[in-house]
Amino acid sequence: MGLILALDFGGTKLTAAVADTAVYHTGELIWQAHKRVYSPADGDAHYDLVTMAALAQELLAGERATAVGVSFGGPADFHTGLVRLSHHVAGWEEMPLQQHLADIFAAPVHIDNDANVAALGEWLFGAGQGVGDLLYITVSTGVGGGWILGGRTYRGHNGMAGEIGHTAVDPDGPLCLCGKQGCVERLASGPYMAADWLAAQHKGAMAITGQEVAALAAQGDEGAARILMRGAWALGVGIGNAANLMNPQRVILGGGVTKAGELWWETVRQTAHQTALPQVQFDIVPAALGDDAPLWGAVALVGNG
Amino acid sequence: MGLILALDFGGTKLTAAVADTAVYHTGELIWQAHKRVYSPADGDAHYDLVTMAALAQELLAGERATAVGVSFGGPADFHTGLVRLSHHVAGWEEMPLQQHLADIFAAPVHIDNDANVAALGEWLFGAGQGVGDLLYITVSTGVGGGWILGGRTYRGHNGMAGEIGHTAVDPDGPLCLCGKQGCVERLASGPYMAADWLAAQHKGAMAITGQEVAALAAQGDEGAARILMRGAWALGVGIGNAANLMNPQRVILGGGVTKAGELWWETVRQTAHQTALPQVQFDIVPAALGDDAPLWGAVALVGNG
Repeated sequence: MGLILALDFGGTKLTAAVADTAVYHTGELIWQAHKRVYSPADGDAHYDLVTMAALAQELLAGERATAVGVSFGGPADFHTGLVRLSHHVAGWEEMPLQQHLADIFAAPVHIDNDANVAALGEWLFGAGQGVGDLLYITVSTGVGGGWILGGRTYRGHNGMAGEIGHTAVDPDGPLCLCGKQGCVERLASGPYMAADWLAAQHKGAMAITGQEVAALAAQGDEGAARILMRGAWALGVGIGNAANLMNPQRVILGGGVTKAGELWWETVRQTAHQTALPQVQFDIVPAALGDDAPLWGAVALVGNG
Repeated sequence: MGLILALDFGGTKLTAAVADTAVYHTGELIWQAHKRVYSPADGDAHYDLVTMAALAQELLAGERATAVGVSFGGPADFHTGLVRLSHHVAGWEEMPLQQHLADIFAAPVHIDNDANVAALGEWLFGAGQGVGDLLYITVSTGVGGGWILGGRTYRGHNGMAGEIGHTAVDPDGPLCLCGKQGCVERLASGPYMAADWLAAQHKGAMAITGQEVAALAAQGDEGAARILMRGAWALGVGIGNAANLMNPQRVILGGGVTKAGELWWETVRQTAHQTALPQVQFDIVPAALGDDAPLWGAVALVGNG
């Protein structure tokens, strides 16, 4: 019996929660407390750390955490405990986050990037329960992935496994910031789909989101529907290729773009199964944990790290 | 101290060898004996089994094998010990090969498909020694792969992992027998490259091999060079995609097409590293074990199964 502190450094928001260690036996996650703040636009790593520490201390209310699990929204290394950088907040470069938190909370700390953490959370508490080999993919502002193989997080040689967003599916596709043409992320992520719709409308100065593209498609806008379905196709090819390579039992999709409707899901599923060989068995299901996925995953990381 | 029987059902040839169990300590594989026969065109599974058993008994010369390792050139299931089918020889459908061999040799038998077995062989005895996570790819009459992750064979949910040949890299590419356009195997395997060269020359009735396409390219035939380099490009994209997904430390390439020359290798390497994100670290090296790879792998399978 003890308290697990779960922290989510989400880029634009900071969330902390406290759970009971009984969760590993009951499978039921009962938050003792749960608190979220939004980062100011001019925040930095120091601000985030101090704010998160204050949030957590308030939740713990004088109790001690048995262990701390951390989801970081960017490249973070489980083995070294270092954050490589944040794409959203300044000052995170080579930050020893694990060490800082261990000093603050005087408890063992496990950190990992949000895709690996979400994969672990879905595996232990969500849509991947009982599944030995799975690929979790978030389709949101970017497209990222995390592997659970043989019931453990698989991170690869230097911690870069899971980058399905930058697998290439069309050599004649549009150019991605990564320098390649036709990456899954370039075609299937929200901001890129929004940018492509705006470019097609010659509305360069406007700003819309991937969700709005999906809404436009649902309202019958043909250009929006074409862009959305091209994204679903690209993601489907990426998933089918991953299935041929790794034959996971299940692929779990989370993130805002997965709310784009039934036709989007059908296109992803159909393309993925057409791309995979007929003998390669897998299914594609929605994530179960929603916005709290990183926190559930952080709790799972403590039990599985 | 004991004898390991290594068997290679290679489709068109049957090979048996006997090694000393000391190999696992010394790392040096000293064949006690080694024998190969070529299957007749009208052979079947029964012929292959009887012939292989006779070969092995002759090699064993009355001694008993401590264990038997088997490489099968086609879909074979490590866990059930069943051969699913052979693409070359009739009568293999759902054959309980492991059970038949256990009955014949009264010893524990491990079977697996040739790509997984070769990956294991390269890992224990060849170009992958000391590498925790690797992808072995054979580029030959087909393009197949095998994974070693965390020092063990990774087979996937229903034993289909490693099918890099049927990952798709160009939606506008030529049609593969698998039903998709622009698979790695459709573009990079020997027979498909040969067929494309013949089609471009309007020489439908001739028969040439992938090696001859490579030889023509080396002699300055521009059409042959274009086809060969397109194959190298496709394989490079497939490897780069696999690297983004799994971040293996090393990719090992074996098979006849890898003898196509330095420009082919350069194109594969350059394309793979351009496709992978810059942070994804891996190298691409030639296989070390040559034609005996399945036998070395069969010995490794006994020690690692």
